[in-house]
Amino acid sequence: MIVIKVGGGKDLNIDAVVADIVKLRGEGRELLLVHGGAETTNEVAEALGHPPQFVISESGYVSRRTDRRTLEIFEMVYCGQLNKMWVEKLQTAGVNAVGLSGLDGRIFEGTRKETLRVRIDGKRMVLRDDWTGTVDRINTHLLRTLLDAGYFPVLTPPAASDKGEAINVDGDRAAAMVAAAFHAEALIILSNVPGLLRAFPDESTLIREIPRAKANDFMQFAEGRMKKKVMGAVEAIGEGVQKVIFADGRVEAPISAALAGGGTQIG
Amino acid sequence: MIVIKVGGGKDLNIDAVVADIVKLRGEGRELLLVHGGAETTNEVAEALGHPPQFVISESGYVSRRTDRRTLEIFEMVYCGQLNKMWVEKLQTAGVNAVGLSGLDGRIFEGTRKETLRVRIDGKRMVLRDDWTGTVDRINTHLLRTLLDAGYFPVLTPPAASDKGEAINVDGDRAAAMVAAAFHAEALIILSNVPGLLRAFPDESTLIREIPRAKANDFMQFAEGRMKKKVMGAVEAIGEGVQKVIFADGRVEAPISAALAGGGTQIG
Repeated sequence: MIVIKVGGGKDLNIDAVVADIVKLRGEGRELLLVHGGAETTNEVAEALGHPPQFVISESGYVSRRTDRRTLEIFEMVYCGQLNKMWVEKLQTAGVNAVGLSGLDGRIFEGTRKETLRVRIDGKRMVLRDDWTGTVDRINTHLLRTLLDAGYFPVLTPPAASDKGEAINVDGDRAAAMVAAAFHAEALIILSNVPGLLRAFPDESTLIREIPRAKANDFMQFAEGRMKKKVMGAVEAIGEGVQKVIFADGRVEAPISAALAGGGTQIG
Repeated sequence: MIVIKVGGGKDLNIDAVVADIVKLRGEGRELLLVHGGAETTNEVAEALGHPPQFVISESGYVSRRTDRRTLEIFEMVYCGQLNKMWVEKLQTAGVNAVGLSGLDGRIFEGTRKETLRVRIDGKRMVLRDDWTGTVDRINTHLLRTLLDAGYFPVLTPPAASDKGEAINVDGDRAAAMVAAAFHAEALIILSNVPGLLRAFPDESTLIREIPRAKANDFMQFAEGRMKKKVMGAVEAIGEGVQKVIFADGRVEAPISAALAGGGTQIG
């Protein structure tokens, strides 16, 4: 099993990802796709008059303030616009794709943060009407059933809380959990950089290899959203994923290039 | 198998539908839900500055003009906002729901109208960049797989064309096709009227029973969107659905009430 995570950035080469999935499936590889959509969600939230707001947790991570209306817009973009875009592109390319959120069949199951301690504009606040959380486990049964029946799962947040509520979770960490649950041979995280950079954003400072035992040390090089990606990688490696690859999603055959040794290889 | 179709109208009692699904599943009934979302799609399309436009086909049916941007908004509302709302409500009520569009696994497969002959403001026009079509067949394999594994499918348009493109199709007729494909014991169509009315909108003129052989004669009483509902019913009956019930979706226990003889019973 190879788990591919693609972000929602506009400069990703979506058609190249689709063509590469077709090719690799043709070679008998078992694949699964997880996608994001943060950038488009911001745009749609602006257009609908409910602009995005970001909060910083006490531990220093940036996350999207997710009130009920934001959750609804999040679902419109991730599960509607983008998930069905991926499914349509794959279906027209001959892949029998099935698009699901982590809420469906509780594929991503986790814990809602019922109270969220954050800083907004430097002030400490406790948010109670927030719908974010973390993925604690992957229910592989539905995915295994679909894969064995020949379908290609295309997954996206939100997840389900243990009460069945929709919760906004980080897509990279969800993908890492999926890879761990399947003891995947590789988790490939495609974004709009060539991999982990020693001096972001200088692409010539690409870190080509990180030994699995030292993955944690490389957290210092992770900037902004890359922090969660590296954290997910460290977790995935810790839970038995053989290799995590941060690779360039803007190029032709991006998955094959990652499998051939491109990007930042951890493991 | 009982197939339930719920519209997207704001006055439907969604929580009552969910509670009734929980109760009937508890009694061992096999159910499947198909939902719409036209009303919310109109609102979101307005809010996003791409207001809905309706066209009249040469045969007199009203349908949504579906250019690429409309298709995207349609997917945001049907597959994102509303499908995940249903799944979340069902999951929190203990039903292991899985939300899918007809595009996923090509559950609803059909034909795109590559050219659409319509009248707009009385003028005859041929539209070429339109993404509407009709459902020709239901691929039951994925649904049967999910039902046998204990999941509750929640379906919504769009459908997949034979090329795998997303196409806007009528939800009532798609539900009728699903009911026919499963030789369902009943197709229950819940909306914001008590059933088919002899003198719309006078609710006291409810037609209680229509013998299956005479279903076609009752088309004369169908107004506006009800035309497609009755057409779907006639098709479903013709293809082996035992009973089609048009029933009130605003009341408590709306599915049980329909099964107990409420609404307009055809068959």
